[in-house]
Amino acid sequence: MKNNVLKAWCAEFAGTFWLTLGGCGSAVLAAGFPHLGIGFLGVAVAFGLTVLTGAYAFGPISGGHFNPAVSLGMVIAGRMRPGHLPGYVFFQLAGACAAAAVLYTIASGKPGADLGGFAANGFGAHSPGQYGMAAALVCEVVMTAVFLLVILGATAPGATKGLAGVAIGLCLTLIHLISIPVTNTSVNPARSTGPAFFAPEWAMDQLWLFWAAPLLGAVLGALIHRTLLAEDDVWLSSSPDF
Amino acid sequence: MKNNVLKAWCAEFAGTFWLTLGGCGSAVLAAGFPHLGIGFLGVAVAFGLTVLTGAYAFGPISGGHFNPAVSLGMVIAGRMRPGHLPGYVFFQLAGACAAAAVLYTIASGKPGADLGGFAANGFGAHSPGQYGMAAALVCEVVMTAVFLLVILGATAPGATKGLAGVAIGLCLTLIHLISIPVTNTSVNPARSTGPAFFAPEWAMDQLWLFWAAPLLGAVLGALIHRTLLAEDDVWLSSSPDF
Amino acid sequence: MKNNVLKAWCAEFAGTFWLTLGGCGSAVLAAGFPHLGIGFLGVAVAFGLTVLTGAYAFGPISGGHFNPAVSLGMVIAGRMRPGHLPGYVFFQLAGACAAAAVLYTIASGKPGADLGGFAANGFGAHSPGQYGMAAALVCEVVMTAVFLLVILGATAPGATKGLAGVAIGLCLTLIHLISIPVTNTSVNPARSTGPAFFAPEWAMDQLWLFWAAPLLGAVLGALIHRTLLAEDDVWLSSSPDF
Amino acid sequence: MKNNVLKAWCAEFAGTFWLTLGGCGSAVLAAGFPHLGIGFLGVAVAFGLTVLTGAYAFGPISGGHFNPAVSLGMVIAGRMRPGHLPGYVFFQLAGACAAAAVLYTIASGKPGADLGGFAANGFGAHSPGQYGMAAALVCEVVMTAVFLLVILGATAPGATKGLAGVAIGLCLTLIHLISIPVTNTSVNPARSTGPAFFAPEWAMDQLWLFWAAPLLGAVLGALIHRTLLAEDDVWLSSSPDF
Repeated sequence: MKNNVLKAWCAEFAGTFWLTLGGCGSAVLAAGFPHLGIGFLGVAVAFGLTVLTGAYAFGPISGGHFNPAVSLGMVIAGRMRPGHLPGYVFFQLAGACAAAAVLYTIASGKPGADLGGFAANGFGAHSPGQYGMAAALVCEVVMTAVFLLVILGATAPGATKGLAGVAIGLCLTLIHLISIPVTNTSVNPARSTGPAFFAPEWAMDQLWLFWAAPLLGAVLGALIHRTLLAEDDVWLSSSPDF
Repeated sequence: MKNNVLKAWCAEFAGTFWLTLGGCGSAVLAAGFPHLGIGFLGVAVAFGLTVLTGAYAFGPISGGHFNPAVSLGMVIAGRMRPGHLPGYVFFQLAGACAAAAVLYTIASGKPGADLGGFAANGFGAHSPGQYGMAAALVCEVVMTAVFLLVILGATAPGATKGLAGVAIGLCLTLIHLISIPVTNTSVNPARSTGPAFFAPEWAMDQLWLFWAAPLLGAVLGALIHRTLLAEDDVWLSSSPDF
Repeated sequence: MKNNVLKAWCAEFAGTFWLTLGGCGSAVLAAGFPHLGIGFLGVAVAFGLTVLTGAYAFGPISGGHFNPAVSLGMVIAGRMRPGHLPGYVFFQLAGACAAAAVLYTIASGKPGADLGGFAANGFGAHSPGQYGMAAALVCEVVMTAVFLLVILGATAPGATKGLAGVAIGLCLTLIHLISIPVTNTSVNPARSTGPAFFAPEWAMDQLWLFWAAPLLGAVLGALIHRTLLAEDDVWLSSSPDF
Repeated sequence: MKNNVLKAWCAEFAGTFWLTLGGCGSAVLAAGFPHLGIGFLGVAVAFGLTVLTGAYAFGPISGGHFNPAVSLGMVIAGRMRPGHLPGYVFFQLAGACAAAAVLYTIASGKPGADLGGFAANGFGAHSPGQYGMAAALVCEVVMTAVFLLVILGATAPGATKGLAGVAIGLCLTLIHLISIPVTNTSVNPARSTGPAFFAPEWAMDQLWLFWAAPLLGAVLGALIHRTLLAEDDVWLSSSPDF
């Protein structure tokens, strides 16, 4: 149904908007607040909860990807028709950019606002902990690969379906608990792209890695799932019906 | 049934009492405790858990709104009869005021107690991070709009019903993780009104924004849900049966 | 069945052992660890998770009270036969005392160990935040009353049964987020009694309040539930079958 | 089916890889980050979420042990055939070692990287809080015993099956909230073994305790469950079907 595709696009826009606004917003506004700030732990919880809440709110409409790497992995794993990929990715990017604009409006609305790196992802001199390009690459690839393993496993036939949103959301929290110091954690090219428009120039220069590594990791995760763990041929069985 | 309306009112009173006591109580009593304080992260968790626990305890009786903005959004989305709105809002306000009184009693029960802003919501000079009125307005509108999208999506036909309370409660946690520094986070006019009676004078002066913005956000969220995301006509299908 | 009563007693012993060891253990061993300590937030999470995990592990056997105040409230609400109360309370106390002994063994196993207040509950000079007796009394009564409302509501007919353990466990986390600064949080006479044997003398002197207030709060909560919120006569319908 | 055994081995490898990478990774990379570090609370959350996510992703394939002590307890409790034990343990160890290697690659990828104890478990001078061998032994035995009680209880016939992964994962979080200061928390010989290859020499010298104590605790927990709490003979009823 045309109509259902439109709804799915709206859902992906809304979910990726929420992921970027909530995750990057908590990082920009609240992480380093004097004495009472939420730190990396709070940011990790925030990112995870964007996906958890989005999964229950928008998941039934679009599948709840909110992430071009996840959508690519879904195609590789046979869970989404390849023809739907461009539309999903476009609306994910649009949602992330809209979120970055809203966040910029809020964050700059105080005297002497200093937006710092605007929660952009980076490596080398722009890694929170100064981790180099190789470490960043390994980290993003491995994290995204496991993310896809968890997503594909938790939504496989035979899994406890109702709790997939909890498991997947909290997996993103866990990924952030590990890897914020390395790259500020992407595993999601859309989440990296939106803030890069408002961050210092280096963010756009380093953006390539946060497309390349998550996409590569997603392909790896999807292939490992298909080869070693999947029940059997579930081609498109759990794809939204349009 | 008359009797069921009465129970629903009691449930809304109890739930909003708990939301205000738990959320504002954690902020007033525990957030800034020397060395061991729970910070904004703990307050965010507390607010979310008031709704999560209230949803499972009182939700089956009243729908578990605990918030005039949510009730208004429910009416706009066709999930509650307009005639029930005044009663819900009245008992929500009563619960929030009772909670503020109890909290005041406890918090003032130590030598040299300093209640500070008593967890009231504010902007400009009274924003925790000095964010201005425009930023506060944008933030509260957007946060409440997404809150309604999550509430309406997670309780829509086709959603995983049993987990709606988890998703909605943790969405409030997430909203606080983002926006405590901006306005101390309202998204709920009742939660703003109760403490304003016990806070310094500025809280009452600025209270208008914490009615206007959440209500506007709720209307926006409900309209977006109806227009772009809702399955089809579910008018009153999930309204409590009275 | 005799045999089932015995199992229920073992389950209450084990659950209260875990509640006291986990909650007080995290407070004594980890809360104030230099730089990396878990603070009141971590202790609040720990207490809640003892009940959450205990509810799924031992709840099907005994109902998962782990708390004399909860057992009393269950009797008042008509969910447990009065004759089972003494046995439950005895094994809860035994579990809490065993846990305190194990914790003492571990905590004293380092050079120059300083056990401080050993996580005992106190008011006045022994309240973490110096809150007086009246504030402590109000706080413990209100917190226990709401705890019972949540327990009775989340396990009522019509509630989402499978998630009651999550809601009830996280309610205890929430209660601690609010009230650790006031009394170190009891709402559970067994949890207060075990550590009092190993704490400084004041703990035993002040123990009366942590029996009186939680029991009073539980009675209040159960009566409010029965009078204002309960579906109708569910006398003993959800009591374990022995 | 041969094929199913292979899948189960892959699942145990992947789950233990994730447990070790996520838990130890958060400890090595993020716990002590200046100002914004996640502390012991964040590490405890990370360890728990590795199991929670792994349980929903890989649990349906292998049962989701990710831990030689858990596998041994499962055999003792009659939930797994003894003949499957060696294969499970081998792949768990392989996964933990692979994770430690990946973590080493990432963590050493910054100028002047200092890996400290590489999240290895230790006692005495190598306990985070200087706890001696006896305290470490008691702590690891008791924690693992309760872990097994929770695992066996939450997956027993009559339990709320869908939430077992939540309860078991959060039980590991709770165990870490209590015992990181004592031993850095093992309760899992595989998790202790992987990092020991990359940690300072003392880690290998003290590794024996983190095999002996968890295995002993698991046997104790399984025996207590069988003797005092189990429904009746469930021999192999919930063992994966191969």
